[in-house]
Amino acid sequence: MTDTTKEPCFDVAHLGHVEILTNKPEESLDFFVDVYGLTESGREGESVYLRAWDDYEFHTLKLTASASTGMGHVGYRTSSPQALERRVKVIEAMGCGIGWVDGDLGHGRAYRFRDPDGHIFELYYDTRDYQPPESEKPALKNIHQRYHGRGVAVRRLDHLNLLATDVSRIRDFMTTALGSRVTEQIQLDNGRLGGCWFTVNNKSYDIAYTEDHTGIPARFHHVTYAVDQREDVLRAADIFLENGVFIETGPHKHAIQGTFFLYVYEPAGNRVEVANAGARLILRPDWPTITWTETERRKGQAWGLKTIESFHTHGTPPGEVAE
Amino acid sequence: MTDTTKEPCFDVAHLGHVEILTNKPEESLDFFVDVYGLTESGREGESVYLRAWDDYEFHTLKLTASASTGMGHVGYRTSSPQALERRVKVIEAMGCGIGWVDGDLGHGRAYRFRDPDGHIFELYYDTRDYQPPESEKPALKNIHQRYHGRGVAVRRLDHLNLLATDVSRIRDFMTTALGSRVTEQIQLDNGRLGGCWFTVNNKSYDIAYTEDHTGIPARFHHVTYAVDQREDVLRAADIFLENGVFIETGPHKHAIQGTFFLYVYEPAGNRVEVANAGARLILRPDWPTITWTETERRKGQAWGLKTIESFHTHGTPPGEVAE
Amino acid sequence: MTDTTKEPCFDVAHLGHVEILTNKPEESLDFFVDVYGLTESGREGESVYLRAWDDYEFHTLKLTASASTGMGHVGYRTSSPQALERRVKVIEAMGCGIGWVDGDLGHGRAYRFRDPDGHIFELYYDTRDYQPPESEKPALKNIHQRYHGRGVAVRRLDHLNLLATDVSRIRDFMTTALGSRVTEQIQLDNGRLGGCWFTVNNKSYDIAYTEDHTGIPARFHHVTYAVDQREDVLRAADIFLENGVFIETGPHKHAIQGTFFLYVYEPAGNRVEVANAGARLILRPDWPTITWTETERRKGQAWGLKTIESFHTHGTPPGEVAE
Amino acid sequence: MTDTTKEPCFDVAHLGHVEILTNKPEESLDFFVDVYGLTESGREGESVYLRAWDDYEFHTLKLTASASTGMGHVGYRTSSPQALERRVKVIEAMGCGIGWVDGDLGHGRAYRFRDPDGHIFELYYDTRDYQPPESEKPALKNIHQRYHGRGVAVRRLDHLNLLATDVSRIRDFMTTALGSRVTEQIQLDNGRLGGCWFTVNNKSYDIAYTEDHTGIPARFHHVTYAVDQREDVLRAADIFLENGVFIETGPHKHAIQGTFFLYVYEPAGNRVEVANAGARLILRPDWPTITWTETERRKGQAWGLKTIESFHTHGTPPGEVAE
Repeated sequence: MTDTTKEPCFDVAHLGHVEILTNKPEESLDFFVDVYGLTESGREGESVYLRAWDDYEFHTLKLTASASTGMGHVGYRTSSPQALERRVKVIEAMGCGIGWVDGDLGHGRAYRFRDPDGHIFELYYDTRDYQPPESEKPALKNIHQRYHGRGVAVRRLDHLNLLATDVSRIRDFMTTALGSRVTEQIQLDNGRLGGCWFTVNNKSYDIAYTEDHTGIPARFHHVTYAVDQREDVLRAADIFLENGVFIETGPHKHAIQGTFFLYVYEPAGNRVEVANAGARLILRPDWPTITWTETERRKGQAWGLKTIESFHTHGTPPGEVAE
Repeated sequence: MTDTTKEPCFDVAHLGHVEILTNKPEESLDFFVDVYGLTESGREGESVYLRAWDDYEFHTLKLTASASTGMGHVGYRTSSPQALERRVKVIEAMGCGIGWVDGDLGHGRAYRFRDPDGHIFELYYDTRDYQPPESEKPALKNIHQRYHGRGVAVRRLDHLNLLATDVSRIRDFMTTALGSRVTEQIQLDNGRLGGCWFTVNNKSYDIAYTEDHTGIPARFHHVTYAVDQREDVLRAADIFLENGVFIETGPHKHAIQGTFFLYVYEPAGNRVEVANAGARLILRPDWPTITWTETERRKGQAWGLKTIESFHTHGTPPGEVAE
Repeated sequence: MTDTTKEPCFDVAHLGHVEILTNKPEESLDFFVDVYGLTESGREGESVYLRAWDDYEFHTLKLTASASTGMGHVGYRTSSPQALERRVKVIEAMGCGIGWVDGDLGHGRAYRFRDPDGHIFELYYDTRDYQPPESEKPALKNIHQRYHGRGVAVRRLDHLNLLATDVSRIRDFMTTALGSRVTEQIQLDNGRLGGCWFTVNNKSYDIAYTEDHTGIPARFHHVTYAVDQREDVLRAADIFLENGVFIETGPHKHAIQGTFFLYVYEPAGNRVEVANAGARLILRPDWPTITWTETERRKGQAWGLKTIESFHTHGTPPGEVAE
Repeated sequence: MTDTTKEPCFDVAHLGHVEILTNKPEESLDFFVDVYGLTESGREGESVYLRAWDDYEFHTLKLTASASTGMGHVGYRTSSPQALERRVKVIEAMGCGIGWVDGDLGHGRAYRFRDPDGHIFELYYDTRDYQPPESEKPALKNIHQRYHGRGVAVRRLDHLNLLATDVSRIRDFMTTALGSRVTEQIQLDNGRLGGCWFTVNNKSYDIAYTEDHTGIPARFHHVTYAVDQREDVLRAADIFLENGVFIETGPHKHAIQGTFFLYVYEPAGNRVEVANAGARLILRPDWPTITWTETERRKGQAWGLKTIESFHTHGTPPGEVAE
């Protein structure tokens, strides 16, 4: 059933970081540190570098003050320096490359490129390990920072979701450029792809794309950090409630991917998720893509919650959905 | 800090199945089906084939009636047919190969070999997908069998633990034969390795070895299935209690690997674990091995529980620890 | 602030049992036993007697085959024989008494009466302890039946909710007849009470009434059993999903009373809830009633979920809401 | 089986507050506020007044700087002013009264008395409601303070445990003086009571006494606040670990009362518990005392954890156990 002549690609190791733009930098920073529970590891220019307590890299979220909102760029780390070279060769051949950049506070040189919708990606191998100051050293040395228990206290970067006008083109792009696998997708009645979930490793997805109806390119849907237990998601809901954070929908369980989710907007309007996947992993090397039809999606989320309308329309930067 | 001239190996995809021997086949089967919550998918000869509700393969546990207890063999699935050939070449060169077998009810031809302590391994690529009968079809098509909620209702095979006289030799063997990474290990004061945790993918470990003091070769320590939440482990404790299952230790959190654990003995005496890892994954391609000293281990488990004495002595088949 | 000349009333100890009518007796029984996780303790006439594993009485749910659906009657146990006599005197003076009945399979003689909407209540003191057969004996003797882990495996009867045309009259009735306290209520803009939550003990409520817009008297809204953890409610959602049970709304947290809820319809259409209250109790003897306005209720449930329309209309027996 | 000529007593409503003595006042305060998650509501003299976020009274813990450790006194609130008068009359007749005191920052006049071991109790009715400052106002008005999520963030005072040389005398004292019920007890082989659990309301216990082997009178064993979920107890363990708090034993489930527990020592050495009771309540008015034998207790806690030795010896102020 599966093509076994072509071996799976392991060149890209994992999602590394996401750069989020905010036009309310102080409020956004307060949210990410005091409410969401990230830790600041550095500052440079208009950006603050943030990380969850069990992220091993210097940063996984780069929060950048900007005239608008949305995503600056997304970075993936490769499995080796050689794998980075192989990927760059493929991407250059695809004609979507931008070129090498010197790197950032949190990692070494990186190769930048664009997806068909205009989002900026970068690949890098050389990274900077987080070195906790004395006050952040963990009691057990197999976690990367002390479990501080502040706010939602998310554990690690999990995935992001981007909007794109043509998800089918994205599918071809991601499987070729990063060697990603498509674990699940939505097939609309009109023949278009409504959404697509990709992974480069054993996580069930590290990036998802859903269809954008505004015509505005390169928009951002949400970024997600993982917590260890569903109870942490329920607890997060109370923390958001008490801190006046806008809760869009959840907690509930997604039908697609089975993730236990909770969506909020940080103060500048970017959507942020808290999620738990339980013990679910994609260990199977020849995982066949699971395709959901529009009819199936009409049943709502796993336990029947209707998908909230704004989930199909709200992205950043904001934009009007064409009628 | 890490050697980047050698690329990581992705030839082996995941732990596939474990064969457990029992001299109380009916009691063991009752335990695994009614209490632990596995589902029977087939029978052949002296063996019953069992699986957890979200395992994608036909079986992950082969329960075989035998004169004694312990492990029959352990199987790993490779990432591709080509990867299987590559691994066989390496293993044959190591001189520990046994040879090809035709396969089993649950998978195609497999290559068998021995670890330095005598445990039998097999590698295979061709597998048999589980096809749920009507009564076991799930409500959501991205899980592999209906969540039946019977007994502990474990989700998927997670890892196993074997005993070996010389764990250092095992470390060399596993990293060479399977291309496994050593994520954590125990360095004893006497210079020996007390334990070693290996992974071939993003799980923090799929097999562990700990030192055997009996001199008996090829003994088995435990097999573990994962549940989605720590609450499922606590609930399992009540289910074991009410069903008269011997609880050895737990629930508690391991210092090593941070797993939330619960250990019991199935009726024939083989140790079985229920575990939850939370959101912890080894996504980092150049993960540096974490080494625990004897002094550190004396602090007990994560929250201070002393490691129970039988954890260092009880294995199957049973044996006396030499004084 | 509180009237201290009148002492609180402790005559009624707790909600004892609810009789539910079903026109699909076999399907309803399968639901309550195999899916919801109650245990049958007896049968008589058209009724099956059911109980949760930690209910101390013979039964807490009496399931009666009937031409229609809804509630047969609700029973409360008094604190003592003397308290029963005192209550009967009060109720007779109110003019709503029906009279003594001989009792039932699960308890001794009881005094029956009607609330202003026509629901039938009974008060009793003499009860029948549940005596578990050998197969249902618990491992620990401070619970009343073995934790069997079957289906949702609810722990104990928690509360019920009835519909009434005039909730204000109900408030007067309950506080006088049973000596209940009003812990929370909804004050509508039109001056009417939209809902009222009552308790006779330290639970935050054992019965609630909400306004019925159909004009049909004595309708039933739902019955609720408690589980120990919110995780049990989430797990229940998967069990309902896999068993084809209609999920109306949830899991989510109520703003009123803070209960973590999940509502389903059993096969005959009666609404059934699974709930967890956490550690919340009404220990305060002079608890001031908390009043919610319509404006406040428009914010939806605790984390923003809109209250589902059917929650205001669906009751049993079914009826049309007058426009 | 139960004596129904005597009606149950409802004069005492609930445990109100505990005064803890500390010879390390600053460290103890840091522990209770930053780690345990209480909130300071006032200061007077050598005392700081503390409360959990859903306690309705001004304070539930009075932390008093002292030359030693242990308990200052314990306060219970009565159900009414009349009930207070009735109790005082009974206690005076018992000959163990001390007399009226003017009250405290958190409540009005109180009547003080001694238990047979010398611990000081007080009963009061007039209390002071907690009035949250703007920054502590909750999002939902049915909780008494904002859920701040700081540290362990315990919800409400639950119970305390005292040591006594003669627990049998305590049983007579508590049932007479407060009208408490004995829900569970330990009957030693030597005819003595090893422990006794009492309640004045629907909680399964609000105070417990266990036998003291030191001969030192009026010692303190531990104070306990409740959290909503068992997951909160597990999370507390990580918070204690990261903050260098000594964890004595747990998390595990008690056989007696079924409480999910975790015990630590605050910096001055007083034992403090975090606990969750699930949905368990003593609603039954004629609850028969459950008696555990020494043989039964030897099985350890619910899931087999051996009771730690220090649990039988460590109390405050500290003392030597006579051989």
